[in-house]
Amino acid sequence: MAEKLGAEVLPIEHKTFPDGESYVRFDGSVRGETVVIVQSAYPPQDKHLFELCLMADAAKDLGAERVVAVVPYMAYARQDKRFMPGEAVSIRTVGKLLRAAGVDKLITVDIHSDEALRNLSSELEVANLTAIPLLARYMAEDKGLSGAFALAPDRGALDLAEEASKVLGGGFGWLYKHRDRMTGEVRVEERRLDISGRTVIIFDDMISTGGTVVAAAELLKKQGASRVYAACTHPLLVRDALKRIMASGCDGVVGTDSVPSSVSVVSIAGLLARELRNEL
Amino acid sequence: MAEKLGAEVLPIEHKTFPDGESYVRFDGSVRGETVVIVQSAYPPQDKHLFELCLMADAAKDLGAERVVAVVPYMAYARQDKRFMPGEAVSIRTVGKLLRAAGVDKLITVDIHSDEALRNLSSELEVANLTAIPLLARYMAEDKGLSGAFALAPDRGALDLAEEASKVLGGGFGWLYKHRDRMTGEVRVEERRLDISGRTVIIFDDMISTGGTVVAAAELLKKQGASRVYAACTHPLLVRDALKRIMASGCDGVVGTDSVPSSVSVVSIAGLLARELRNEL
Repeated sequence: MAEKLGAEVLPIEHKTFPDGESYVRFDGSVRGETVVIVQSAYPPQDKHLFELCLMADAAKDLGAERVVAVVPYMAYARQDKRFMPGEAVSIRTVGKLLRAAGVDKLITVDIHSDEALRNLSSELEVANLTAIPLLARYMAEDKGLSGAFALAPDRGALDLAEEASKVLGGGFGWLYKHRDRMTGEVRVEERRLDISGRTVIIFDDMISTGGTVVAAAELLKKQGASRVYAACTHPLLVRDALKRIMASGCDGVVGTDSVPSSVSVVSIAGLLARELRNEL
Repeated sequence: MAEKLGAEVLPIEHKTFPDGESYVRFDGSVRGETVVIVQSAYPPQDKHLFELCLMADAAKDLGAERVVAVVPYMAYARQDKRFMPGEAVSIRTVGKLLRAAGVDKLITVDIHSDEALRNLSSELEVANLTAIPLLARYMAEDKGLSGAFALAPDRGALDLAEEASKVLGGGFGWLYKHRDRMTGEVRVEERRLDISGRTVIIFDDMISTGGTVVAAAELLKKQGASRVYAACTHPLLVRDALKRIMASGCDGVVGTDSVPSSVSVVSIAGLLARELRNEL
């Protein structure tokens, strides 16, 4: 990103003390500068968010004029409303903390929901970018899957599948997904799709435990899809998610480098740099 | 604490999602109430602090009139100033975050330094209580160590040793401690103390890796102390700290229940309840 922008890179000295406390230090001056802090909030989420707060607060305290936080993967975006009485709306709390720490603007990518974006935007300035065209282009050009069917595993991801289909050109559709809020178990409803003999790519903002992709891939294969791929912006892939997905008959998983993983092959540096150009 | 205060206890439903995100939910109404949230910030510190922020923000959002956070052990209190240029003053950031999350007052116990207390107090109302008399009384009455010498392992803990000596009645003193800020290694300077043949109790706010107690105990035994004990408010005892301390010739370690550990034998519930009485 810095290369693309011709921006100076300031090293951050950071460590974790033996008892687990985080430590950050700016190794150079930020006085009068617009400081862009790049910190994705993948696991351990609370530590990454707290480090971001430490950096933003320190930057302001050291004289930075403006702090822009680039958080490609934003944690807690799924807790975007009160599903049960008494629940914390965690994403709103995150927005309050970032603002209190001195973050003036937040740039994120394919945040989980409009509701999450609204909650964050009520606390601070937010830009939400999409990496779906980049992912679709990768599937079309690098994987040779032009013409594949773009599938949303639930209604929430329908905009993503539609966006991807503009690049892939093979139409789009969606499944109905039910998640048990207590057990976390995912069930995908039987729904006839016209995909017999076709290549299908499941598009989603994130893959966490992989339960959704597993359920969708099994259904798609049963309905006669010749090949099934999964593409997501944020490949969290907790624990053995990738192994479980591949065992379900999925032919491949692709993600961006918003989260480090073995499938983080699509770079979002250019996407972020383009947005940052307005800031610098 | 609730028993001593005759206060209602509201259960908090809390869990950690498979990817590591925290979840909290109040199982009952807090509308119009003063809500006391008890959450000690021992490891994992960032998770415990973030959970506290979620709870405070949710309480306010659910209509709580006032939120009092009881944080017996406050993390990040050692990063209470900029030791090197460019460093975050982490404890001040913590203060900002707690305030932003809706905490109106913070009650803590034996916070690491006056500087940490000042930094927090610049952000929100803080009461800092001391458990040292409780610890000293335990050593005198339950351990039969009345008349023991109270030792501060460094000048920063001198007030604690003096306070303890008022209960123990056997005088007090201190050592010079040097900590290498890069390696974390602790060195205690030779300093003649009049402790030959005496029982010495080292008093400190916290024991983390145990390096300080190990260095002090070895020196004290070398100078002829008959028995050496360590008493602290916050027995963090990370990794094999307790084993290392016992191997250094220390005859016993005692702490409060501000942090759960195998030596958390002194209850601070009464101390906290007394302070809370003013709030309710």
